[in-house]
Amino acid sequence: MRKRIKDYNIKFGEFPPGRNDLITDVPGVHVGHCTIIKNEPSIARTGLTVILPHNMDVYDFPVFASYFVINGFGKSIGLMQIEEMGTIETPIVITTTLNVGRIADAVVSYILKNHPNVTSLNPVVLECNDARLNDSRMRWLGEKEFFKALENLSDDIFELGNVGAGTGMVAFGFKSGIGSSSRVIKSKDGKVYHLGVLVVPNCGRKKDLIIKGIEIEKCSKDEEEFKGSIIIVIATDVPLIPRQLKRLCVRATHGLARTGAKSTNHSGDVVLAFSNSIKIPRNSASLVLTYIPDDTDLFQNLLDAVVEAVEEAIIDALFTAETMTGVRGKRYEALPIEKVLNLMKGVTDK
Amino acid sequence: MRKRIKDYNIKFGEFPPGRNDLITDVPGVHVGHCTIIKNEPSIARTGLTVILPHNMDVYDFPVFASYFVINGFGKSIGLMQIEEMGTIETPIVITTTLNVGRIADAVVSYILKNHPNVTSLNPVVLECNDARLNDSRMRWLGEKEFFKALENLSDDIFELGNVGAGTGMVAFGFKSGIGSSSRVIKSKDGKVYHLGVLVVPNCGRKKDLIIKGIEIEKCSKDEEEFKGSIIIVIATDVPLIPRQLKRLCVRATHGLARTGAKSTNHSGDVVLAFSNSIKIPRNSASLVLTYIPDDTDLFQNLLDAVVEAVEEAIIDALFTAETMTGVRGKRYEALPIEKVLNLMKGVTDK
Amino acid sequence: MRKRIKDYNIKFGEFPPGRNDLITDVPGVHVGHCTIIKNEPSIARTGLTVILPHNMDVYDFPVFASYFVINGFGKSIGLMQIEEMGTIETPIVITTTLNVGRIADAVVSYILKNHPNVTSLNPVVLECNDARLNDSRMRWLGEKEFFKALENLSDDIFELGNVGAGTGMVAFGFKSGIGSSSRVIKSKDGKVYHLGVLVVPNCGRKKDLIIKGIEIEKCSKDEEEFKGSIIIVIATDVPLIPRQLKRLCVRATHGLARTGAKSTNHSGDVVLAFSNSIKIPRNSASLVLTYIPDDTDLFQNLLDAVVEAVEEAIIDALFTAETMTGVRGKRYEALPIEKVLNLMKGVTDK
Amino acid sequence: MRKRIKDYNIKFGEFPPGRNDLITDVPGVHVGHCTIIKNEPSIARTGLTVILPHNMDVYDFPVFASYFVINGFGKSIGLMQIEEMGTIETPIVITTTLNVGRIADAVVSYILKNHPNVTSLNPVVLECNDARLNDSRMRWLGEKEFFKALENLSDDIFELGNVGAGTGMVAFGFKSGIGSSSRVIKSKDGKVYHLGVLVVPNCGRKKDLIIKGIEIEKCSKDEEEFKGSIIIVIATDVPLIPRQLKRLCVRATHGLARTGAKSTNHSGDVVLAFSNSIKIPRNSASLVLTYIPDDTDLFQNLLDAVVEAVEEAIIDALFTAETMTGVRGKRYEALPIEKVLNLMKGVTDK
Repeated sequence: MRKRIKDYNIKFGEFPPGRNDLITDVPGVHVGHCTIIKNEPSIARTGLTVILPHNMDVYDFPVFASYFVINGFGKSIGLMQIEEMGTIETPIVITTTLNVGRIADAVVSYILKNHPNVTSLNPVVLECNDARLNDSRMRWLGEKEFFKALENLSDDIFELGNVGAGTGMVAFGFKSGIGSSSRVIKSKDGKVYHLGVLVVPNCGRKKDLIIKGIEIEKCSKDEEEFKGSIIIVIATDVPLIPRQLKRLCVRATHGLARTGAKSTNHSGDVVLAFSNSIKIPRNSASLVLTYIPDDTDLFQNLLDAVVEAVEEAIIDALFTAETMTGVRGKRYEALPIEKVLNLMKGVTDK
Repeated sequence: MRKRIKDYNIKFGEFPPGRNDLITDVPGVHVGHCTIIKNEPSIARTGLTVILPHNMDVYDFPVFASYFVINGFGKSIGLMQIEEMGTIETPIVITTTLNVGRIADAVVSYILKNHPNVTSLNPVVLECNDARLNDSRMRWLGEKEFFKALENLSDDIFELGNVGAGTGMVAFGFKSGIGSSSRVIKSKDGKVYHLGVLVVPNCGRKKDLIIKGIEIEKCSKDEEEFKGSIIIVIATDVPLIPRQLKRLCVRATHGLARTGAKSTNHSGDVVLAFSNSIKIPRNSASLVLTYIPDDTDLFQNLLDAVVEAVEEAIIDALFTAETMTGVRGKRYEALPIEKVLNLMKGVTDK
Repeated sequence: MRKRIKDYNIKFGEFPPGRNDLITDVPGVHVGHCTIIKNEPSIARTGLTVILPHNMDVYDFPVFASYFVINGFGKSIGLMQIEEMGTIETPIVITTTLNVGRIADAVVSYILKNHPNVTSLNPVVLECNDARLNDSRMRWLGEKEFFKALENLSDDIFELGNVGAGTGMVAFGFKSGIGSSSRVIKSKDGKVYHLGVLVVPNCGRKKDLIIKGIEIEKCSKDEEEFKGSIIIVIATDVPLIPRQLKRLCVRATHGLARTGAKSTNHSGDVVLAFSNSIKIPRNSASLVLTYIPDDTDLFQNLLDAVVEAVEEAIIDALFTAETMTGVRGKRYEALPIEKVLNLMKGVTDK
Repeated sequence: MRKRIKDYNIKFGEFPPGRNDLITDVPGVHVGHCTIIKNEPSIARTGLTVILPHNMDVYDFPVFASYFVINGFGKSIGLMQIEEMGTIETPIVITTTLNVGRIADAVVSYILKNHPNVTSLNPVVLECNDARLNDSRMRWLGEKEFFKALENLSDDIFELGNVGAGTGMVAFGFKSGIGSSSRVIKSKDGKVYHLGVLVVPNCGRKKDLIIKGIEIEKCSKDEEEFKGSIIIVIATDVPLIPRQLKRLCVRATHGLARTGAKSTNHSGDVVLAFSNSIKIPRNSASLVLTYIPDDTDLFQNLLDAVVEAVEEAIIDALFTAETMTGVRGKRYEALPIEKVLNLMKGVTDK
């Protein structure tokens, strides 16, 4: 993992980042990776990333969630029930396209193990396609790898770049990976809230890339047919209901667009948001909620914060990821930081 | 498999059924089951059912499709891409809830085997939960069972009732299974078209059941907590675009409601429709389509035909399914046909 | 207004109706009609119906709302903002198709009058087409008629049948009108809640009509091209959030289907639901809500109650409406109650 | 109207603009404005803009259409039926919020006049709120103004900036108005197609504005509470079905985001797209269509072209609009072109 964009003192937007500028700055959120890099029996450049909404058993205590599909050329599982029930009841996993079935099954195994009576479960597995670097037809990932990622869960600093679901990612013609960021938002009465995002950008053509308004490779001719996606996960501790979480998700499009990505025909650009403020015990007859109306500064600030946090996290994925060679000797260079910094001179003070 | 409802000369609606009153009456549509019934190492009462849209390779020749979610407490995979691209590119599989991941993976295996360059694929796997009869936590079904179902594909008569995805189904307190029906619809200029449905009803409380307007068990007190779903697949050879197929899907709700089902909180009531009239070759630059405007008798008749075909197919599942004993000795009786026929006396001439 | 179906002691479903079996049984809900019947300068058989969610100013205290479109061949206004914000901020009006613009404008006039600083407002106007009886191209209704309906608001018994938006309605080939019903539902801890519906059925072909399972006119050949719609409004005092209200709306389809209606190509079948439990003051920074999880008996009972209440209310519209002659001497007969009662003999004890 | 951004030789993206860089470059598309500026009896700074899809009667020959709601705090009418039927059957009108009802009614008047048997009609009226400059509570616009705009229809050059629906618009703290642009796209076999957009930007805070990557007023503190919207209309002569048109609409978000707008809580950001390639005669039994699969360069180019065309059109609205003083002496300055050009020096060659 290379230095993060924040380490160059480059800032995005107006809200301050949280402690680590990571999704885990939202109290209770955990992230864990499992990374597989092998050259035998064939080339593996793949992995998976798990996001846990809170410290408790998420099956016993689901949280409100919603999603938005910017472009639906994707193979995610679990979205229909989120729409209907407004909750997630499993860890969220991000992995590679052809591996979705096996990982959904691994999530089932995990919950069954700890819940002897469960016979219905809605695993949420999102995906980007790492086939540009990985021999993805091998479907390297299964139960073992999923459990490995669970072991690696952290609610503090976690690795970015070429790890987990980010291992085989390519964005804007450069090596991409896991990116993350966070924002701290205060309500009028001084309460401190958090918003965090984790992104897996696998999208964008080289000529499209924009960093803080600057076109980095505008004369580039991409030599390959472009197919790519992005997964964006948003976490917050503001008590929001699903309708409001969906509104946050839509704003991720704006953050994505600021990086120059245009959501191509073959992109599975999916945004998932959850609030871990309310942990809904199964079989409760009623709950008392605090509802933050949309027409508040707090909610408006959240909408804005999503835009800047998503923009930063995508660029962060490019900053942290490192050059990689994969299937058929295909090599994707890391973003040339020096060049970018030179182009940005004069704007880094923003 | 017991006698079908049509064998009692009980008719639903105004359109004539096709040759076999089955979804395979739509030319090109194939259905295949794999049924697993075992008592060791634990109780298996499960299976899967495959629907192939046409005679050719569906990956090479996708067809237009759409879907509608009546109630989204379900774990299906593949719907997002259908919404975006308006096509399906794999066989449609129906199986049990906890087995979705493994079967999605099996579909991937199947397509990869025959398409050496594929690295992106959208398997469509729908599900109902057979845990009332089956030790579903065992996840009995995988690649082998999926390939078995493919071997069993038929474009003619296929079995109904306790087979395939219908094996462990329970509806309205009775043993349920696979049901099917079809309708023949003519356009004004005399062209003959087909509409077929296949249903997997796992829904409805005993007290809810209505057959042709007659409440069968209205005084029943269901003794168990009710959670159940229905999968409905609609096929047609009328050239329809996805928006129109979605309109057909919505009408399945009306057919379902006529059987007394109310789509409970915990139901995954999903309707999928496809037209195999147009086989879209990959990489074609343009296609010439015949478009049937919605404001035609043909389209209106299709809307109506969905209602009656779905109603019949659900009742057919109850007629054909047989009494079964499953996990923990739980026994679900077959629908008592004699009793039903007695109640219906005087209406069977409709 | 003729006798209501409840006056014949015919019951639908398992939940008891409220005091008057009307939507106004939900405490705070008001209904008012304005009916226009004229023969000069041309034939007027039209009107509008207003539903007020609660006793207070609904602009100052919006309530949670949601909707579901069964079939969207309709011209309603106001739905987009309900989806986004989850609230309604004006009275709900139902009127005839070509009059939507003028009535939306009348709602604006009404709110502007009482709120001197308002410059943004989302009027909610739903519609069915009364052109079979009314010279609807005259657009008889405007501000005056809207204010008249407001004067007629009642939170107790109000008229059904040929009044308000029901004046020119035709359903199943018979004269239709306004129908209503309500249900009382208790939570486990003994709290008493209400669900009410108001319907404006303008849908269904004569041959389609089913009353409590009995096909009333099954051999009928409708002589006219059929185009028709239904508006269904659901009110409750259970504290529900918009996602849950949408789930109630979907169940109205099941109630509609039980009357034999199939939602034809040219139908605008729209369901709107609101909860007046929570009155959201403008500019509040946060609210404390009671949230009823979906996985409770209370919520499941609400889903079921919608089905039976909608079914009853539609039939009630047919029972209460009276024969009417309109444009071009066109005459629509009232439902022949004696005939229906005879057909139903033996089932009225349900 | 001031000079357009293209007159400064500033280009957006990679596709060439059409003849006039206007939506009317799509053959058949017409645009007409009616502008109302008065100081008596109170301040009027308002208007409406009409877009006609083609040269023929759009009621007799509807065209395929679809829409996407970026943020639904808006009062548009006509969207529900577009979703269901996939067509528009009236001119598209854009006007101010409180005037939607009256203009919808004017559209009804217009169609009734020319179609003696019409009793059902779906007017499409979109809106932005001009209350910052206009005494919008007066609802200045009605039938007369709508017919005036029809008289002004042009399929060639039309005015931008402070005209029609753009009259009272404010975006990014500056005076805004009507903007437009177009792109020419060739298919592989050399066919020339067009994409055009017309925008009415009323959105964005001063601090948000980005022009070609450059933050124009980044240190600005907006002194007013911000509520604003944007309407975006996309026209093309590529034969697309509604599903594909919806995909184009989504990409308008990316173009919008590139200007720095974030779609605030109180924004009605609505995108409508139509293809005038196929004119669907009423009562046709079937049509032969050319279908362009999504997986073609042509379709991918359209997706990309939307992004750049929308970005340009929004900036064009700011370039062409002129300083205006309105209600309560409120004055909104035109975008300071010299300042912007200075900031952009070195990037205009892109």
